[in-house]
Amino acid sequence: MSIRIGILGYGNLGRGVECAIRQNPDMELKAVFTRRDPKSVHILTEGVPVYSVEEAEKRKDEIDVLILCGGSATDLPVQTPEYAQWFNVVDSFDTHAKIPEHFASVDAAAKKSGKVAVISVGWDPGMFSIARLYATACLPEGENYTFWGKGVSQGHSDAVRRIEGVKDARQYTIPVESALEAVRSGSNPVLSTREKHTRECFVVAEEGADRERIEREIKTMPNYFSDYDTTVHFVTEEELKRDHSRLPHGGFVLRSGRTGWEKENGHIIEYSLKLDSNPEFTSSIIVAYARAAYRMNQEGQAGCRTAFDVAPGYLSMESAEELRRKYL
Amino acid sequence: MSIRIGILGYGNLGRGVECAIRQNPDMELKAVFTRRDPKSVHILTEGVPVYSVEEAEKRKDEIDVLILCGGSATDLPVQTPEYAQWFNVVDSFDTHAKIPEHFASVDAAAKKSGKVAVISVGWDPGMFSIARLYATACLPEGENYTFWGKGVSQGHSDAVRRIEGVKDARQYTIPVESALEAVRSGSNPVLSTREKHTRECFVVAEEGADRERIEREIKTMPNYFSDYDTTVHFVTEEELKRDHSRLPHGGFVLRSGRTGWEKENGHIIEYSLKLDSNPEFTSSIIVAYARAAYRMNQEGQAGCRTAFDVAPGYLSMESAEELRRKYL
Repeated sequence: MSIRIGILGYGNLGRGVECAIRQNPDMELKAVFTRRDPKSVHILTEGVPVYSVEEAEKRKDEIDVLILCGGSATDLPVQTPEYAQWFNVVDSFDTHAKIPEHFASVDAAAKKSGKVAVISVGWDPGMFSIARLYATACLPEGENYTFWGKGVSQGHSDAVRRIEGVKDARQYTIPVESALEAVRSGSNPVLSTREKHTRECFVVAEEGADRERIEREIKTMPNYFSDYDTTVHFVTEEELKRDHSRLPHGGFVLRSGRTGWEKENGHIIEYSLKLDSNPEFTSSIIVAYARAAYRMNQEGQAGCRTAFDVAPGYLSMESAEELRRKYL
Repeated sequence: MSIRIGILGYGNLGRGVECAIRQNPDMELKAVFTRRDPKSVHILTEGVPVYSVEEAEKRKDEIDVLILCGGSATDLPVQTPEYAQWFNVVDSFDTHAKIPEHFASVDAAAKKSGKVAVISVGWDPGMFSIARLYATACLPEGENYTFWGKGVSQGHSDAVRRIEGVKDARQYTIPVESALEAVRSGSNPVLSTREKHTRECFVVAEEGADRERIEREIKTMPNYFSDYDTTVHFVTEEELKRDHSRLPHGGFVLRSGRTGWEKENGHIIEYSLKLDSNPEFTSSIIVAYARAAYRMNQEGQAGCRTAFDVAPGYLSMESAEELRRKYL
């Protein structure tokens, strides 16, 4: 019998989950829930109903895992504990500073309902977190480094779009190659924010807008840009659409550490991603954790989990014997 | 209270475990067991006793986890099930084809004794296995590639040393850069053995030995060399000692896969290691899994486990809260 999946929220991430389900033959999309008018939401999978979110609770016995595809700012802090009352759930909550709080509220709800809730999965938090944890456990004395990009940061693109006179914009975060090389050399460099990443913006200005002011406002924007070397390119709407409409991303997690009685030996562990589509890769990971949530719940587990609490084998559709034979 | 560790077998790996314990403040080396005369074995840690292996059973209440540092060919198939009768154990069994058999015999012993036995940990099998499993679960449609090196292969070095007229030898396995680049490009190439790795041998010949014959015997040796492009260098004993006495290793695990409704997006996941000391890095991983074995057994678990069955959080000396705060 397939694992029956529900999707709550049908944006980039929800659509990615829908695509990923098609690549996992032990899973089946049962329903999509939306806050919009269900009649206005057209999904890719034939024969699968779109319901209003209000329907979700009623459908709890038809769905094994509900995947929450909302945003971390306002949706998930409310949705994840709410739906954990009725469903095994998975989310990609990524506001690092608020994870303890989110974990606590989701854990309370899931323990009460006897469900499993896996939070903060994707690639960062998620695969990058796991890479940091394994590397740190395997080399207790050393330094961790995370670099992001080259890729589109949606938060930074949004920030540029909010500037007066900006019609549209896309921002790329780019790791500094020489900084990466310094880490790979084992020298354990201390790197400032500016030394690790640069930022590049492609901006469509409104007609008649003051481009110099826009560029200055971008480059001096606190938190987002002021600590980085930023390049701004003004482009036409057509150019933006043609050259910058995809959502690639990626990055690098490195640990440089030492072993030996006198710490005489150095080691570098590197994990990296190069992604054509950030939301689709994130979705694909979320779907693997939905399988894990289902299985852990089948075993009688309940409560909130992160990627740190889930044994790798739970993520795979193959049996333990097959995994040992094929991947060990 | 510290986790009390015993080491069985004091070669390169045993010494590496001893060094790693010093880097893990929640652990304590309690004893080393050897098949040699204990008086002939001098360890690095002051005040820790060296016993004959016959003593081990008697000391079972003094040790939380016994780390088995023997070889996969003849030692571990016997030792791991034997010592799992009395101890939580960890081994680095790496004969891929015999893992199912080894798993079964260790599992039976550990279930009977109520202990946890973690087998086949290190970096391959071990960290590379995990990298393959996570990557495959996150990108169900794609190809896995593993490259080893640049590094010293002890099995291949031994094979060269067995040739008549060879006094000493060191063999390096080297990944072919263009093959790695082809994989990174996302083209999912089909690569032959010869296209993936080259081999380089540094050989000290006996005085008067026929070097041409030695070179030919190396290059045509079935399984070990005949499927590879091999380079042979004759060097002096001093040169071998000076330039080739360390045991570096490393390698790359890559997965190239596609997502999207029409599989329109490609992704590359890459995990790589660059190690100054193969045995010390392996030991360092084994020690992290010793912690996991202890904790799982404290929770009441029993039986055989591989890296696939161990949630990442068990490997770390930090609390779940700290892990979420620092690495998620």
